[in-house]
Amino acid sequence: MSSPMHNTYNNNNGSQLANMELLTLDNPVFCCYLFWATVLVAKMLLMSLLTALQRFRYKVFPNEEDLFFKNIEVQFDDPHVERVRRAHRNDMENILPYFIMALIYVCTNPNPLVACNLFRVAAIARIVHTLVYAVYPVPQPSRILAFATMMLITFYMAAVVALRTLRFI
Amino acid sequence: MSSPMHNTYNNNNGSQLANMELLTLDNPVFCCYLFWATVLVAKMLLMSLLTALQRFRYKVFPNEEDLFFKNIEVQFDDPHVERVRRAHRNDMENILPYFIMALIYVCTNPNPLVACNLFRVAAIARIVHTLVYAVYPVPQPSRILAFATMMLITFYMAAVVALRTLRFI
Amino acid sequence: MSSPMHNTYNNNNGSQLANMELLTLDNPVFCCYLFWATVLVAKMLLMSLLTALQRFRYKVFPNEEDLFFKNIEVQFDDPHVERVRRAHRNDMENILPYFIMALIYVCTNPNPLVACNLFRVAAIARIVHTLVYAVYPVPQPSRILAFATMMLITFYMAAVVALRTLRFI
Repeated sequence: MSSPMHNTYNNNNGSQLANMELLTLDNPVFCCYLFWATVLVAKMLLMSLLTALQRFRYKVFPNEEDLFFKNIEVQFDDPHVERVRRAHRNDMENILPYFIMALIYVCTNPNPLVACNLFRVAAIARIVHTLVYAVYPVPQPSRILAFATMMLITFYMAAVVALRTLRFI
Repeated sequence: MSSPMHNTYNNNNGSQLANMELLTLDNPVFCCYLFWATVLVAKMLLMSLLTALQRFRYKVFPNEEDLFFKNIEVQFDDPHVERVRRAHRNDMENILPYFIMALIYVCTNPNPLVACNLFRVAAIARIVHTLVYAVYPVPQPSRILAFATMMLITFYMAAVVALRTLRFI
Repeated sequence: MSSPMHNTYNNNNGSQLANMELLTLDNPVFCCYLFWATVLVAKMLLMSLLTALQRFRYKVFPNEEDLFFKNIEVQFDDPHVERVRRAHRNDMENILPYFIMALIYVCTNPNPLVACNLFRVAAIARIVHTLVYAVYPVPQPSRILAFATMMLITFYMAAVVALRTLRFI
């Protein structure tokens, strides 16, 4: 499929892709973003299933119509369920802004080696975050380190993009 | 800058869009994504207004500065308000990752018929989810089915993209 | 379908960018989106740090492994912490859908002056929202006005995009 592109692509010098080609499968940095963003989307969806699993395991449901067992009532404060929900909320607070920030960062044509490694480290850090928070709680500072890794990466990307686009304020 | 691209662009046959054209209004799949993503954004914003409506109807406010009526206090556990907030949170957990996943999926140049129908089914499923959860509670498994529809579609897109970009791991 | 575009593309004058160039740094509207989206991402991440600050200040932690001080227990209902968390949740409810909506809006090649000013006003409104909600609580309707500003802008963008892509329903 990409064969008609090769000439154009090869005529560029490697480090200076035309801007218009950045959000295509011809750009290895974008492909790397696609892969790791997909991994993180799948990880986030699994949080919903993990919450559901905990709800059935401990028979804790928040709605009248969810009471699948006899003699139980709606309940909101089960620590096992709430732990998974806090981890899930933390994912939303951090991974969702990261998706936009990393996509924006790809648009500024970053160094491929730096960018791809940032995507890899950020995704793995959040998988570790889920493991030590929701799956098997581990003493601090494991969770703080995993949390800080993606946050620092997002701030780095924000700084790069802000400096690059500052004159469009 | 764009001059070297012209030949490539004109050599295209219609069914085999070059990657670079995927995120434009020339791509019907992208337009279909735009329309249904817009519908879902509007639906999500309406959840905020529905929450506000319930707060005024039942006079339940979470902040001191929001006490618009005399002789009421801050309150957090009203079931009518909390039901809408749970539905809204569920939207954030599922629709926001879907936005990114579907956009990424468009970048892999999927079959137009499959892609457009996935966008339609996913959006309608989430509208049904809101109706049976927040507007007029209905016995299960209506909500579970509506929830699972978008989740399975998102997982399908994730699988397609992951297979396509696996070598950029 | 794309044949009528060829002439347009080759005849380009500066004000009428071909669609394919919209998501590049050559498009000032996209650059303006990048800058202000970056500002809002950074603002959202700071909410996490503000929450952490309040947790340490009032010694309120939600997990056993977070009890960094002696003789304290897990606690969930501190008003200072919960206020910041409500502000953060409100950010997720409004800013995250806005990111997608504004990106989609850029794809429809809007009037640059209108678009850039919408991005500026929306971002500043949300910064004000955070200040009057989480940093220094101020009587209403300051927060409602800040909240409504971004919401109305998002609805306006949704209307523009929906009208433009309605035939792809």
